[in-house]
Amino acid sequence: MADTREKALQYAAGNRPQFLKQLKELISIPTISTDPEHVPDLKRGAEWIADKLRQIGLENVATMPTDGPDVVYGESMEAGPDAPTMLVYGHYDVQPADPLEMWESEPFEATQRGDNLYARGASDMKGQVMASIFAIEAVKGNGGLPVNVKFMIEGEEEVGSGNLEVFTREQKELLACDFALNPDAGMIAPDLPTITYALRGLAYFEINLTGPNHDLHSGQYGGAVRNPANELARLIAGMHDEKRRVTLPGFYDSVRALDKAERAELSRLPMDEEFYLKQTGAPVLWGEEGYTPVERTSGRPTLDVNGLFSGYTGEGSKTVLPAKAMAKVSMRLVPDQTPEEVHEQLVQYMEENAHPGVTWEVEMLSKGPASISARDSAESKALSAALETVWGVRPLYKREGGTIPIVAYMQNVLGAESLLTGFSLPDDAIHSPNEKVHLPTLYKGIDALIHFICNLAG
Amino acid sequence: MADTREKALQYAAGNRPQFLKQLKELISIPTISTDPEHVPDLKRGAEWIADKLRQIGLENVATMPTDGPDVVYGESMEAGPDAPTMLVYGHYDVQPADPLEMWESEPFEATQRGDNLYARGASDMKGQVMASIFAIEAVKGNGGLPVNVKFMIEGEEEVGSGNLEVFTREQKELLACDFALNPDAGMIAPDLPTITYALRGLAYFEINLTGPNHDLHSGQYGGAVRNPANELARLIAGMHDEKRRVTLPGFYDSVRALDKAERAELSRLPMDEEFYLKQTGAPVLWGEEGYTPVERTSGRPTLDVNGLFSGYTGEGSKTVLPAKAMAKVSMRLVPDQTPEEVHEQLVQYMEENAHPGVTWEVEMLSKGPASISARDSAESKALSAALETVWGVRPLYKREGGTIPIVAYMQNVLGAESLLTGFSLPDDAIHSPNEKVHLPTLYKGIDALIHFICNLAG
Repeated sequence: MADTREKALQYAAGNRPQFLKQLKELISIPTISTDPEHVPDLKRGAEWIADKLRQIGLENVATMPTDGPDVVYGESMEAGPDAPTMLVYGHYDVQPADPLEMWESEPFEATQRGDNLYARGASDMKGQVMASIFAIEAVKGNGGLPVNVKFMIEGEEEVGSGNLEVFTREQKELLACDFALNPDAGMIAPDLPTITYALRGLAYFEINLTGPNHDLHSGQYGGAVRNPANELARLIAGMHDEKRRVTLPGFYDSVRALDKAERAELSRLPMDEEFYLKQTGAPVLWGEEGYTPVERTSGRPTLDVNGLFSGYTGEGSKTVLPAKAMAKVSMRLVPDQTPEEVHEQLVQYMEENAHPGVTWEVEMLSKGPASISARDSAESKALSAALETVWGVRPLYKREGGTIPIVAYMQNVLGAESLLTGFSLPDDAIHSPNEKVHLPTLYKGIDALIHFICNLAG
Repeated sequence: MADTREKALQYAAGNRPQFLKQLKELISIPTISTDPEHVPDLKRGAEWIADKLRQIGLENVATMPTDGPDVVYGESMEAGPDAPTMLVYGHYDVQPADPLEMWESEPFEATQRGDNLYARGASDMKGQVMASIFAIEAVKGNGGLPVNVKFMIEGEEEVGSGNLEVFTREQKELLACDFALNPDAGMIAPDLPTITYALRGLAYFEINLTGPNHDLHSGQYGGAVRNPANELARLIAGMHDEKRRVTLPGFYDSVRALDKAERAELSRLPMDEEFYLKQTGAPVLWGEEGYTPVERTSGRPTLDVNGLFSGYTGEGSKTVLPAKAMAKVSMRLVPDQTPEEVHEQLVQYMEENAHPGVTWEVEMLSKGPASISARDSAESKALSAALETVWGVRPLYKREGGTIPIVAYMQNVLGAESLLTGFSLPDDAIHSPNEKVHLPTLYKGIDALIHFICNLAG
């Protein structure tokens, strides 16, 4: 394998111009998934990737239909049935480029300035997808892959991957694998390679309260009936205690505690109070007693109001005592909480606390389980070693506060843990004008993925 | 006067179709004072009333400018300098009609179903204004008025009569009178004519909270910053204690207590718990410990949320941690509280309680002082007798939970007490969809006003 590793690295080093040319080609297809006008571009994008997979010798390559954009599939099973199988996940769709006038060069004509390549999708995540394909190409063409590889590149991640759970279930056999590689998680800094090993889950609810059966005049009836907006405020207020802990009954019962080792690992992340103050613009921070901001935003569950509505919200004053009040309230979950259990806890809380002067309904609008993968699995160690070889430092392990539904589907449907990494940087301006990818970092990423694949040979 | 009285009553009885036609015309002008789009409609509404006053022979009729909508003025001084002068107050503006989808017929096309006329403003208070004008028309045209009469019909009562105090001060000479008649206070039941001797005041605020300086992803940052919607809920919840008393510092210090005699008088009102449950449709009642519903809604101050808005309120879920949250919160005041003192108390409460993770602003959007008047004046007795003549029962004396700022201005600026009565019913759904007025009651009201004017002849 040493020979393969060396040749593959040389191949990658020698073919950077070709790699860059291909990335620019993919970028030039405006695969904006949120805009129905770009449906033909999504088709073209999927076909372009399928062609590329065929070109590097993958088999069973296809653009597979869903109720949304096609999923690109391709596989190399030459390592044989005894070798492990890795599923590489990615997405070829991008965010819209608006506001166009803020771009310094055309968003879909990749333009190099200094070490950066500027274009929509350069970082999120056409650059990452191409880096993965190119690493596979390099190893496969210079001695062969020590593992079986499958690609699943979707086209609607930027609009919520709405059809991917069904696709994953329907193609469970085809997608069968031992673990997944998801290069859509970024690095914390150019010199700090990063492995994301946990994601928070989500349980999102709408709470509706009704007090009187019609809007009342607050002069005539104010003081005699329970105002549902006041009651909603009281119920929401009661969902946290003075230690900023969530009070839903049993909320922390299945929360997997952060042990000393993990807290030490998380404390290595260069995200201190200053970082959070700068990113949020909040006057001061807030959060659960006894935890750092990094822990609060990734390793601990939370409850936030996402929306409030009641009564009159236009200009000026209307002296209405509203009949109804609505809140959207969501919880970020950590292993081993489930959306279903917090749903029950919320209902129990409402049963125990809502004033009898109101009736209420709780509806779960969306959900996604939390996920976590072992930091000491063979593939995790292989990736860690690869990153350390290239960057010269032990990678950071971080948990992500958000939810990536596909990671949960892979865990639940395919039984596969995801290795989350990637070579985008915090200043890549993903989703913003002048998105860019840092090419030296991306080239290092290709090398790291080559090492990773070779490390998997054992 | 007996002849005039009889002829006037006959005139009113014979002209109901004309009266109804005119009322429908006035209703068809959507004089919504809270919405800047309706400024031209307010102009049209004022002109319509001025034309009507001219048509019944009033003099010096004018639509008089203020910094808000015009005030309609007109007078009949034919009773001479020795006769008393009555100032009739009313307002031609109405509440918005939202939510439009809950109306069974068009809010600005008055529609008769059974004995009721359905439309925004039918009861509050275009019906009452027209009844007053029509009673004056009937007496004036059938023998002449025994008292001098002035009309002052404003266009911004529903937004707090913000310019009327200045107007009243500037036009103090023009508006000089011995007492005022204000038919904006309703009846307790169709068979129970009512004189209202006290009104609650109002102090209406908008509270705006800002947490982070832009909307955040609730996954990335949830748990590390104070969510302004959660904080707003906590602040609102803290505005009442477990005895349902308002907790603003010093809130009850200047509240005039209800003495035993007054509580006995108020207990005669046929408004028990069942009444309030039926009127409001609330599952159970609520309110300040130690007081009856009638006392809570008229003789005691209150605090209600009138509107709430934050974050995402559309369909489905959006995982936003909002940067801002807004509440409209108003207090109903009783003598001798003032809007200014509760404003200070609210600011002090925010200073003492708001989490430093948010910044806040409190703006007073409208205000009106509370008022209370004597129950044994000559005009009060004349009105009481008139109501008893038409309904056959001695009227009830009550306090009103709502606010009519002009009553306080008349007391303070013109030195005139207001006779508050009116012919709206508790189920008229004023400020709500499907507002209506009960026509048989309104016709009785016209008769009662004719008797009242004739009784004033002495």
